[in-house]
Amino acid sequence: MFTHIRADRLPSGFCRYLSRTSINFAATAEKKSSANANQSIATKQRLYMLSPYSPGSPFFLPNGTRIINKLIKFMKLQQSKQEFTEVITPLIFKKDLWETSGHWQNYKEDMFKVETNDKSKLLDDDVNDVYGLKPMNCPGHCIIFGRYTRSYKELPIRLSDWSSLHRNEASGALSGLTRVRRFHQDDGHIFCTREQIGLEISNTLKLIKICYGVFGFDSYRMLLSTRPHDKFIGKVEEWDLAEKQLAGVLDETVGSAKWGINEGDGAFYGPKIDIMLTDKFGKDHQVATIQLDFQLPQRFGLRYQSEMDTLETPVMIHRAILGSVERFLAMLIDHYEGKWPFWLSPRQAVIIPINSSHTEYAQKLRKVLSNEPNDFETPTKLTEGHFYVDVDSRSETIGFRTKDAISKGYNYIIIVGDKEVKTEKFAIRSRSSRIVNQMGANEIVAKFRSLEENYE
Amino acid sequence: MFTHIRADRLPSGFCRYLSRTSINFAATAEKKSSANANQSIATKQRLYMLSPYSPGSPFFLPNGTRIINKLIKFMKLQQSKQEFTEVITPLIFKKDLWETSGHWQNYKEDMFKVETNDKSKLLDDDVNDVYGLKPMNCPGHCIIFGRYTRSYKELPIRLSDWSSLHRNEASGALSGLTRVRRFHQDDGHIFCTREQIGLEISNTLKLIKICYGVFGFDSYRMLLSTRPHDKFIGKVEEWDLAEKQLAGVLDETVGSAKWGINEGDGAFYGPKIDIMLTDKFGKDHQVATIQLDFQLPQRFGLRYQSEMDTLETPVMIHRAILGSVERFLAMLIDHYEGKWPFWLSPRQAVIIPINSSHTEYAQKLRKVLSNEPNDFETPTKLTEGHFYVDVDSRSETIGFRTKDAISKGYNYIIIVGDKEVKTEKFAIRSRSSRIVNQMGANEIVAKFRSLEENYE
Repeated sequence: MFTHIRADRLPSGFCRYLSRTSINFAATAEKKSSANANQSIATKQRLYMLSPYSPGSPFFLPNGTRIINKLIKFMKLQQSKQEFTEVITPLIFKKDLWETSGHWQNYKEDMFKVETNDKSKLLDDDVNDVYGLKPMNCPGHCIIFGRYTRSYKELPIRLSDWSSLHRNEASGALSGLTRVRRFHQDDGHIFCTREQIGLEISNTLKLIKICYGVFGFDSYRMLLSTRPHDKFIGKVEEWDLAEKQLAGVLDETVGSAKWGINEGDGAFYGPKIDIMLTDKFGKDHQVATIQLDFQLPQRFGLRYQSEMDTLETPVMIHRAILGSVERFLAMLIDHYEGKWPFWLSPRQAVIIPINSSHTEYAQKLRKVLSNEPNDFETPTKLTEGHFYVDVDSRSETIGFRTKDAISKGYNYIIIVGDKEVKTEKFAIRSRSSRIVNQMGANEIVAKFRSLEENYE
Repeated sequence: MFTHIRADRLPSGFCRYLSRTSINFAATAEKKSSANANQSIATKQRLYMLSPYSPGSPFFLPNGTRIINKLIKFMKLQQSKQEFTEVITPLIFKKDLWETSGHWQNYKEDMFKVETNDKSKLLDDDVNDVYGLKPMNCPGHCIIFGRYTRSYKELPIRLSDWSSLHRNEASGALSGLTRVRRFHQDDGHIFCTREQIGLEISNTLKLIKICYGVFGFDSYRMLLSTRPHDKFIGKVEEWDLAEKQLAGVLDETVGSAKWGINEGDGAFYGPKIDIMLTDKFGKDHQVATIQLDFQLPQRFGLRYQSEMDTLETPVMIHRAILGSVERFLAMLIDHYEGKWPFWLSPRQAVIIPINSSHTEYAQKLRKVLSNEPNDFETPTKLTEGHFYVDVDSRSETIGFRTKDAISKGYNYIIIVGDKEVKTEKFAIRSRSSRIVNQMGANEIVAKFRSLEENYE
């Protein structure tokens, strides 16, 4: 059923969110220089690091983790519009599962194999069992669907998952955040009836538009990949219907001028829509993907009770909007050139005390602005927000520290001296403008809140 | 240096947050019945499920994931009082790392071994490399500390990590959420100077008090485990000093009557404090742990520049407050007997339309109360909260649906009929009281906010 191929030659759409060819550079030279620029910002801002102890698995340092966590928070909020519910699923599964899904036969060499290591456990029933470290979440979600008797009334069931995924990429091909062995997706699977496909895909396309708009990505193209010429499963009429449905949704949602057809490039189990994003340098990135799958639900024997009391097989839609969070972050590093908007920034403000006599006051102000109470008496309330504010109390000149703060990417620089301590109004300027305003602490917090709230 | 032992005979304190003996039941019978009660609530409320495809790795279903995510959000907020910064670290590390840390020699049989599986990658430099799936986060955090030149001015550095951890427990011993192979910790490592140990531990103890208080766990004991009689590293004077420091912190923070000594039960690399929590059934649980480690920083060659310009080895404090999140959840299931407080509840409210003509209105009300906007035009704001509200529009009597809602654990039940639609005041009652109030939608949301904010 599958052809035997390497990961980079996967049947198109085989849950292949992390396509190797998805970041296309015009030439190797450009690729190299862009990759270097990306790495250089990441190093300067201490976003992530790599280690020979785990090639291809980036370590996200505190600043990088802040951005990743903000992206995840952002996406969880948006996809709740479509009523996704999150699940947490295992990372290792026995070989049997991967045989059922077809991965073991066809994807085995790109999966990490996990073995028990314990000679003393010979009496256990699962001794010598071989596990695979999961490269994708779909089989785990099929297990959850199959756990309960399902009725059409419950559909669509939309599961979201942020699990770590591992793919055994060749070590020579590994690069920064774009060619990795360990990554995360804003992964989601929608189990629905055939009648529900249209609305689900239409809402997914709307979500993509909303989400990309927040980053200023307004220019993207959509490709509808249709039935392969030779290798496909299912009936031709079913394919025609599904393609027509997808084309109709695309027309309605984005307009007929905004999408193209990739003839014969669908997955063998169903057609798909790939979203190609063009960044401000004119580079194309394949980010979101929406894949119709008639196949996996059958392999796992999934059923639901229809309105007519028959047992039907649900359709499965695989979709991701950010795609690989790591790769999306790499793209954002390029896009913003390290100048993070306030809401995403790991360094939102720095307070510079004019001299050492103002340091204590600056530290107190930091507590107020960051909303990081260190009273160890009462719990911080669940509704509290939090800002990333530092103090730079080095005995350097104000000019030096301001320049350094700009170079480190702090969005706001706040100066504290005698006058500020006395008046409780602080000199605040943004990274990009020399205009200095005088603001009280509450005013600053209100400004920060408004920036965060409006994705600025 | 290590004795050769199984996981359940680990040198005490060897980053052994998930101790096998930590949930002590008076008798096997009680254990069994409690485990069954726990499982029965979990099944009824669809919190988690188990699968033979991945023994010991619970699948958290949507309701369980909601609780887990709320616990994580809660703990992240609290530990920001102590200025922890989160990192995301790899899950697999080469054998060399585990040899450096000492795990390979001493913990190997309880780790999952990961192998590449790819015959075609013979030219790669890491072919046939063996990896270990991490059972704990400490070595990864040592790599991060060692990545940069560190100064005493940066210390303490406090790293927090929520990674998945795996331990190859025998399959026969696996049980629910308490004996698992895959779990998560609210893991944190503090790298500090010897002078900073006291304050860090004191603040950790204060955090424990705040956090446990939220769950109503006011009764817990602390045990200071001191220098082992034979096997220990370092000088006796250093141990005496460290133990004195810990005892002083305990006296100051919790008072001398509230802690005991566990003579000679310290780890071979340093003394530790274990927190034993007694639940309302009188059962003891070992939850939080605070471990002083003079050893791992040396093995990884970690250094910082001191105020005197010498290179010093930092001390490492391993600490967790919840401990294993999975095990803490199991304890909470027992503690609340499935009756979740509003802030933790995966089912906060249900709306019951009196008959089918009220269903559409109930759905609209749900959107308002859950704060789950499904407008697909604008992004949901980052500051938006979210409540878990369902509609039960089955054609059953109000009495039946109310009873069912109570049995499912909904905190509030809201009835919508003609009168409610007309007056826009809704009949709302809590799970535990028959008193019905009339409240407007905004009033209800305000009530929900206040409950969440105050951990009720």
